[in-house]
Amino acid sequence: MAGNMKPVLGFDLGGTKMLCGLVENGRTVTARYKKKTKEIDKPEDLVDRMVSCVEGCLKEAGIRAKDVAALGVAAPGPVDLKTGTLLNPPNLGVQELPLAKLLSRKLGVPVVLENDVNAGLYGEFVAGAAQGFSHVVGLFPGTGLGGGMILNGELYYGVSGAAGEIGHMTVQPGGRLCGCGNRGCLEALASRGAMAREAAVLVAAGKSPTIAKLAGTDISKMKSSVFADAIDAGEEAVIELVNNAAWWLGLGMASCVNIFNPEAIVIGGGLVEKLGKSYVKVAEASMREHAMAAIVKKVKVIAAGLADDAAVIGAAAVAAKNLALNAASGSRE
Amino acid sequence: MAGNMKPVLGFDLGGTKMLCGLVENGRTVTARYKKKTKEIDKPEDLVDRMVSCVEGCLKEAGIRAKDVAALGVAAPGPVDLKTGTLLNPPNLGVQELPLAKLLSRKLGVPVVLENDVNAGLYGEFVAGAAQGFSHVVGLFPGTGLGGGMILNGELYYGVSGAAGEIGHMTVQPGGRLCGCGNRGCLEALASRGAMAREAAVLVAAGKSPTIAKLAGTDISKMKSSVFADAIDAGEEAVIELVNNAAWWLGLGMASCVNIFNPEAIVIGGGLVEKLGKSYVKVAEASMREHAMAAIVKKVKVIAAGLADDAAVIGAAAVAAKNLALNAASGSRE
Repeated sequence: MAGNMKPVLGFDLGGTKMLCGLVENGRTVTARYKKKTKEIDKPEDLVDRMVSCVEGCLKEAGIRAKDVAALGVAAPGPVDLKTGTLLNPPNLGVQELPLAKLLSRKLGVPVVLENDVNAGLYGEFVAGAAQGFSHVVGLFPGTGLGGGMILNGELYYGVSGAAGEIGHMTVQPGGRLCGCGNRGCLEALASRGAMAREAAVLVAAGKSPTIAKLAGTDISKMKSSVFADAIDAGEEAVIELVNNAAWWLGLGMASCVNIFNPEAIVIGGGLVEKLGKSYVKVAEASMREHAMAAIVKKVKVIAAGLADDAAVIGAAAVAAKNLALNAASGSRE
Repeated sequence: MAGNMKPVLGFDLGGTKMLCGLVENGRTVTARYKKKTKEIDKPEDLVDRMVSCVEGCLKEAGIRAKDVAALGVAAPGPVDLKTGTLLNPPNLGVQELPLAKLLSRKLGVPVVLENDVNAGLYGEFVAGAAQGFSHVVGLFPGTGLGGGMILNGELYYGVSGAAGEIGHMTVQPGGRLCGCGNRGCLEALASRGAMAREAAVLVAAGKSPTIAKLAGTDISKMKSSVFADAIDAGEEAVIELVNNAAWWLGLGMASCVNIFNPEAIVIGGGLVEKLGKSYVKVAEASMREHAMAAIVKKVKVIAAGLADDAAVIGAAAVAAKNLALNAASGSRE
């Protein structure tokens, strides 16, 4: 019975910060502990830092590691889900790190690794905006454009856990260069990274005093809030740039609608949080314009609502589920 | 036990012909009966004609309706799978026809309806080119461009059975008009219908004597074999046109690879059968050019091999499965 289950730890490992949360009843975060993700000299430093973040969370909750059922870790892809290995995530300074095994050894609890996009989508599915649906596609525009799918009530992984690269759907053949080496990927047109590269042009042309002041032409400084501030200042060129990116996002959402026949599309991440309704509205209008009428009619567009907690809850839920499946298959043997 | 199961009838209802087959052991067609799909005055005529085709097949097999477990019907979409209703298929002259119910009443066997693309893909999965895989995407360029997916070993339907409209993924925003009303759909660039519309331009410009002779500028006469003949005649303009369509197909296949992380992509239909290896080769090269290297590396591209039998075997397999599921859920009640 869920009520009698031990709580589960969820951990969101990001490039700039890490967050550990205690998740009770599969969906409520009752304690949190946050740390910066510092540059590290050796892989063990990352593991140690994560262990200390977990311990901070346990202390905050007033419990010990043996009181939790498992730890679920949401990490930047690509990850090897079966072996719990971080492959070659950008910004973390590690490669082929068997993170689940190392953390489990130090903490004495089962550890399950999940990629952060799936974890975030699953969090919204079990406790947030996507509750009650069985077919959900998630799109998360950020530096890149992460994607994930819940099909028939389950995360869909594909044959090797790499499914969901919706951001690398080609939508403009021969078009803008993408970080993956291809041209015209959705990510190259609709991500915040893509917006930043265009904004640099506006700044250089003197068309966005706000972005010039906050970030100059440094695209790594063009966070979602920078765009929000420029829009609040009424800068027409930025409004057009953002609307254009939202239009492309909606075009990608439309293809997902036609391919998956889902009940809902969840969009989330910093852009959605900072730009809010006007951004979502443009994306949704573009989706309805480009999708097949009969299929898109009942599709709901939902802005993710759990923010940082989504990946924590989702990672914990994936870990709990994994544990239950292992127990069930063990008892059948 | 499969060996003791009654055989199952599979039926492929097309716009120009209908084919009924007796499927034994879930994968072998042991008798066939074919009829033309004539224009009809009233919906009952279609049902009567189908019944007579089924009876022809039973006679051919030397058995009676009570000797078969079920009838699976593959029909042009859109179909309502739950109620077994043909909605508004093109070229059949019927609307909202409760086909499964009507056929079942006349034949005295359970009838299950499936859309023809799913049935064809499922046939290749249980008895053809896609055997042994669990994650397969199918693309079938014809008049339109049908798509279907087998995910985790099961056909994927979406929330209302409309999933798989891969042909209506937008790949050229603002581009060529598609039959769905949108612009730049994959179908508007990679289907045989799209090729025919381009070929009409070539014919009018005097650049394809072969197509001019076989079809004139009538796009409804530009079957796959017409293109094959023009290529055999060495007509450069047609070769370029076909390669261009195959390139677009491969671009769509690449997006499917990135989204689904499948083991295989199956392509099939008349174009694949008539144009053969050179067509498949161009599509595959384009797929590998446009997909993410790590994901596409192990993906196999497979030409469907069962031709007309695919939908017959697939429809029978879906019906048998449906029946088994119903029996199982009944016994739990």
